[in-house]
Amino acid sequence: MEIKMGVSKSGIKPSKDYDILVLKFRPSVYSLVLTQNSLAAAPVIYDRMVSQMTDKISAIVVNSGNANAATGEEGLENAQRMAELTEDLLGIPENQSLVFSTGVIGVQLPMEKVESGIKEACENLRELDLELAARAISTTDSFPKFYRFEGNLNGKKYSIIGIAKGAGMIHPNMATMLAYIFTDVKIEKDLLDRIMKVVVERSFNSIDVDGCESTNDSFLLIATGENDIEVNEENKTAFAKDILHVATELAKMIVKDGEGATKLIQINVHNASTKEEAKKVGESIALSNLFKTAMFGNDPNWGRILSAIGQLHLDIDFSRVKLYIGDFLIYSGHPVDFDRKKTVEYLKENREVTIEIYLERGDSDWTYYTCDLTYKYVEINAEYTT
Amino acid sequence: MEIKMGVSKSGIKPSKDYDILVLKFRPSVYSLVLTQNSLAAAPVIYDRMVSQMTDKISAIVVNSGNANAATGEEGLENAQRMAELTEDLLGIPENQSLVFSTGVIGVQLPMEKVESGIKEACENLRELDLELAARAISTTDSFPKFYRFEGNLNGKKYSIIGIAKGAGMIHPNMATMLAYIFTDVKIEKDLLDRIMKVVVERSFNSIDVDGCESTNDSFLLIATGENDIEVNEENKTAFAKDILHVATELAKMIVKDGEGATKLIQINVHNASTKEEAKKVGESIALSNLFKTAMFGNDPNWGRILSAIGQLHLDIDFSRVKLYIGDFLIYSGHPVDFDRKKTVEYLKENREVTIEIYLERGDSDWTYYTCDLTYKYVEINAEYTT
Repeated sequence: MEIKMGVSKSGIKPSKDYDILVLKFRPSVYSLVLTQNSLAAAPVIYDRMVSQMTDKISAIVVNSGNANAATGEEGLENAQRMAELTEDLLGIPENQSLVFSTGVIGVQLPMEKVESGIKEACENLRELDLELAARAISTTDSFPKFYRFEGNLNGKKYSIIGIAKGAGMIHPNMATMLAYIFTDVKIEKDLLDRIMKVVVERSFNSIDVDGCESTNDSFLLIATGENDIEVNEENKTAFAKDILHVATELAKMIVKDGEGATKLIQINVHNASTKEEAKKVGESIALSNLFKTAMFGNDPNWGRILSAIGQLHLDIDFSRVKLYIGDFLIYSGHPVDFDRKKTVEYLKENREVTIEIYLERGDSDWTYYTCDLTYKYVEINAEYTT
Repeated sequence: MEIKMGVSKSGIKPSKDYDILVLKFRPSVYSLVLTQNSLAAAPVIYDRMVSQMTDKISAIVVNSGNANAATGEEGLENAQRMAELTEDLLGIPENQSLVFSTGVIGVQLPMEKVESGIKEACENLRELDLELAARAISTTDSFPKFYRFEGNLNGKKYSIIGIAKGAGMIHPNMATMLAYIFTDVKIEKDLLDRIMKVVVERSFNSIDVDGCESTNDSFLLIATGENDIEVNEENKTAFAKDILHVATELAKMIVKDGEGATKLIQINVHNASTKEEAKKVGESIALSNLFKTAMFGNDPNWGRILSAIGQLHLDIDFSRVKLYIGDFLIYSGHPVDFDRKKTVEYLKENREVTIEIYLERGDSDWTYYTCDLTYKYVEINAEYTT
């Protein structure tokens, strides 16, 4: 894809690492999902307005190190200034760029630094380097998050690439998940929006690190249309599946990099009455501190898993529920005499583990991802005074 | 009050401490609230049935060390056996006793031990010793929880006494909050039930240790009617206030004894649109791991508090919100230049701290209690393999 990138070290981050990313591309159809946190950051408020006015964008500008959140009128003006400056410097029409921020809450952006950083980035455009782009939007991520995929539609190849950042609210006041996925297919905005809805629910809305939604969470899906493959009602399912694959891989990287996490835990809920129910069951387990600490302790504590399901107050018949940890059947309508030693070993020896729950209530499935709750999580989030 | 007590060390607990409590009293009006967890324990299912058949009870029997939860038909028969044996031994009519259990999930009760324990307790009735009674229902509580109060209605004195247990799910598979409050007034069951509803919402339903609802949670309120004071529509508010006071004191003890907690945190939400909204705001902050770790780190991190409120997706105008930690104004529609050093000191030096939030949306208030999230919490819940 013809995507140009500019990065700079404007000095917002104390680490003096890259903190500005500009991406320029041909006017493209896009779909945008923003945080629902009512303490939405200034760039979120700005993008919400702009995205109501325009169906195509051709640039994004991101700063890391400062979230521009809880910054009032001044913050909103600064977000707008970032977008307008980018549009001016790149020579693209008004309201064709979106702006994103991530970092400290409640501090105004150092606009002099930001402006010269954007200038430097825009004046030094070059070929997209996914890894460097991911690094420029990172805050306390321990590794850059990016993914490439080659899909196949109507017998022709097409591309999907994505970058993301996020590790829970790893640093005090440092928050946010950001994700950008580009594909080169041709697609109507309306269809892209519908696909986005499904994809975001099954990927970024099905992960948990600490139950805390940020003020800046954003996910942008862009279709440049450079490829002559058209996505329509016939092939949309295959396309959505590919996009979901890329989004899920990025989402899993975020959980894997969760604060202090030692394990990525995949919770597969089977045979629920509805998708919503399946998702709720996965989420309730994923959010349980008791489950998360048990996983850290390599403890196949099925009571905590069932109790987290019970807490939803659904009329679940636990005499029909089956529960597996990895391949080990742990509960089958009643406690099962399972090989405890081998199950503990499975939990101990794998960095990625699976929990399977069969509810026997219907045909709906869902997968939820979470990580364990560790000493390191407490350290990261407590051993610091702002 | 004329309440007789029997305790015994039946051997359910590995510690060999007291694990059976029997209380006998005159046939009394009562109100009962049980866990809504759909993985309800056998005694909860049994009590739910019995309480639909009888308006008066004259005994309770409690065992600690085994929750009799996820134990199927056999568990239910054992719960019934405990109640019937108690009724036989005490010479009281059928269905006039309730049964409660707390401890390990998924293990059948050792009924031989339980039965001889109940027998010993029933044959050695004596004056109620609140502290010993509290100890007999404890599992991993670090201190026994009991409270006495002398109220005043219609110019006459009356008594309220209560015992409770619970410290979150402090030990793997050890769960549950149990609370029993006795008063000597005369009251109709219908009115007691109405008062119970208010009291439980404002006390035991407004505390959090780890967001996990147990399979055995139970709260029983008993009015023996020994005193000739009658509670009616005129004096019910004063009476409810006294009961709430006792319930809140017991609830606070549970949070204070929360797993690994170093702080009891009182969250006062003011000027919400509705009580429900005020409660939700308190709860969202109380459940935030980021807030709880910040409190452990003595970090006046207002961004995490506001973000937890924002996560509710209410249309809150944060430019009108005020936030205090103790007496220190931290946020007032925008970040405030507060005395950080003194605020940190306040958090450091107090075992009980207060957060005040003013929403400026209406007249409704709520108080929610929680504790901090510490290394010790992770240790208690992870450093153990079942």
